[in-house]
Amino acid sequence: MAKKDKGGKRAPAAAPVRELLRVGPGFRLADVDARRVVAGPADKVRAAAEVGALEPEVTEWQEKLYAESKGGGNRRLLVVLQGMDTSGKGGAIKAIDRVSEPLGLRIAQFGAPTKKELKKHYLWRIEQKLPPPGAIGVFDRSHYEDVLVVRVRNLVPADIWEPRYDEINAWEKACVEAGVTFLKCMLFISPEEQRQRLLDRLADPTKQWKYRPGDVDDRLLWPDFMEAYEAALTRCSTDHAPWYVIPADRKWHRNWLLARMVVETLREMNPQYPATTFDVAAETRRVQES
Amino acid sequence: MAKKDKGGKRAPAAAPVRELLRVGPGFRLADVDARRVVAGPADKVRAAAEVGALEPEVTEWQEKLYAESKGGGNRRLLVVLQGMDTSGKGGAIKAIDRVSEPLGLRIAQFGAPTKKELKKHYLWRIEQKLPPPGAIGVFDRSHYEDVLVVRVRNLVPADIWEPRYDEINAWEKACVEAGVTFLKCMLFISPEEQRQRLLDRLADPTKQWKYRPGDVDDRLLWPDFMEAYEAALTRCSTDHAPWYVIPADRKWHRNWLLARMVVETLREMNPQYPATTFDVAAETRRVQES
Repeated sequence: MAKKDKGGKRAPAAAPVRELLRVGPGFRLADVDARRVVAGPADKVRAAAEVGALEPEVTEWQEKLYAESKGGGNRRLLVVLQGMDTSGKGGAIKAIDRVSEPLGLRIAQFGAPTKKELKKHYLWRIEQKLPPPGAIGVFDRSHYEDVLVVRVRNLVPADIWEPRYDEINAWEKACVEAGVTFLKCMLFISPEEQRQRLLDRLADPTKQWKYRPGDVDDRLLWPDFMEAYEAALTRCSTDHAPWYVIPADRKWHRNWLLARMVVETLREMNPQYPATTFDVAAETRRVQES
Repeated sequence: MAKKDKGGKRAPAAAPVRELLRVGPGFRLADVDARRVVAGPADKVRAAAEVGALEPEVTEWQEKLYAESKGGGNRRLLVVLQGMDTSGKGGAIKAIDRVSEPLGLRIAQFGAPTKKELKKHYLWRIEQKLPPPGAIGVFDRSHYEDVLVVRVRNLVPADIWEPRYDEINAWEKACVEAGVTFLKCMLFISPEEQRQRLLDRLADPTKQWKYRPGDVDDRLLWPDFMEAYEAALTRCSTDHAPWYVIPADRKWHRNWLLARMVVETLREMNPQYPATTFDVAAETRRVQES
């Protein structure tokens, strides 16, 4: 699975992390332990060091992916992040940023849709933010909100949201055919951890702006959200765009898992520099003489 | 000019760098020395260390800017980067990324317009990529291409591009009124430095994909491009959105100048956490009981 590039330069290949986290048949959120250390270092310091050590490899893959697109390729990576409030989507994005190059990274946040967006198909605003060929996109929330909060809060009737699972699968398939590789990750925290994180926000005057009283309203609907998540995860974990559930109570482990999954995916994509289409010696002379 | 926040935490305020680089009346590109060290450290190691030391401050400003927008503010910073091929726009973006938080950064690249874009007004695609309130946007090329390459290569007749200078000034004014603070920077390299950078690309098989034979064609039009740049810089360096010219032959100095200018601008914007709009004690109880 984890292909090596330029033998010897890479860290030794470990078991693919994605396979440990993939949502398959019979998946149940209730079986996931949010505090579990699934693989890799069991302490914060070593986990952070391993994440840092991945940077040169990610940078090289990103450059190749971008170069490939300049040679006509259409491939791109799209990391979709979902999770309850305080589950660490922002922190996860920082972890991805830490190992990657800014020019190749396209981050999009999806809050409550605007009036203009509500007038269009719910996938319209998502489509606008697809990363271009050669880039890595990160979605902070996504089209899955249209089968999560929309379902839990009855923002549209069931006969509207019910067909969306199939629609999302079909749309993602079309994206894959247009060169998109999906890495869909749910950051799974426990309700106890969320309570602590909300209390931490309230206790710090420079963090209070992150708190909305509505956060507790969502929290009171925790079982409903878990039911909606389980439906989305199981119905939309397809061969072409699987879902992964990341135990996220431990931030350093969440970051390590995510960085590893990004690297694994890039290795599998294995982008390549395009062939040179000009005469290097002749161009060198032209530049020298200019 | 350079406002301090939480006295004592900041590095000592130096003379504002922007004033040294600002395009004013009588500006001539021919007077700019691309190798000059304008201010700050005269060596690479110290310059890089000073850039790194700015990170906590930029992060804090970014968080405040974002928090302010969550409280209803509409302010955002837009860094516009222009320059000839190899002038280091990508490197400049890395320098900005190094001192800032990924979630608050919105990078957009503007290449040759697509067929769809060509059917619309030239400012349309630019407007789509304006950073949202609370964010820092970085444009790698911009609407200025419509008075640069378009003018030099006669892509449209003069009576089409000529009114664009005024149009751009008016459009930027409207952006400023909608909360955008512009930091428009031209990265100015010498033709000799460009020759060396092009030769470096050609000599490295992993960099050859960055080279296009068209780069030399542009290079042969260097005086025409400088004329077009001078017109854009002087006609569009307004009080509401001034132009700055950054000597960019020395990459470490270019990065230092840019990082300083970003910090200066954020200090001047001086974003603030919004006032808390809920009862902290009551919400703390709600969370504890949930």
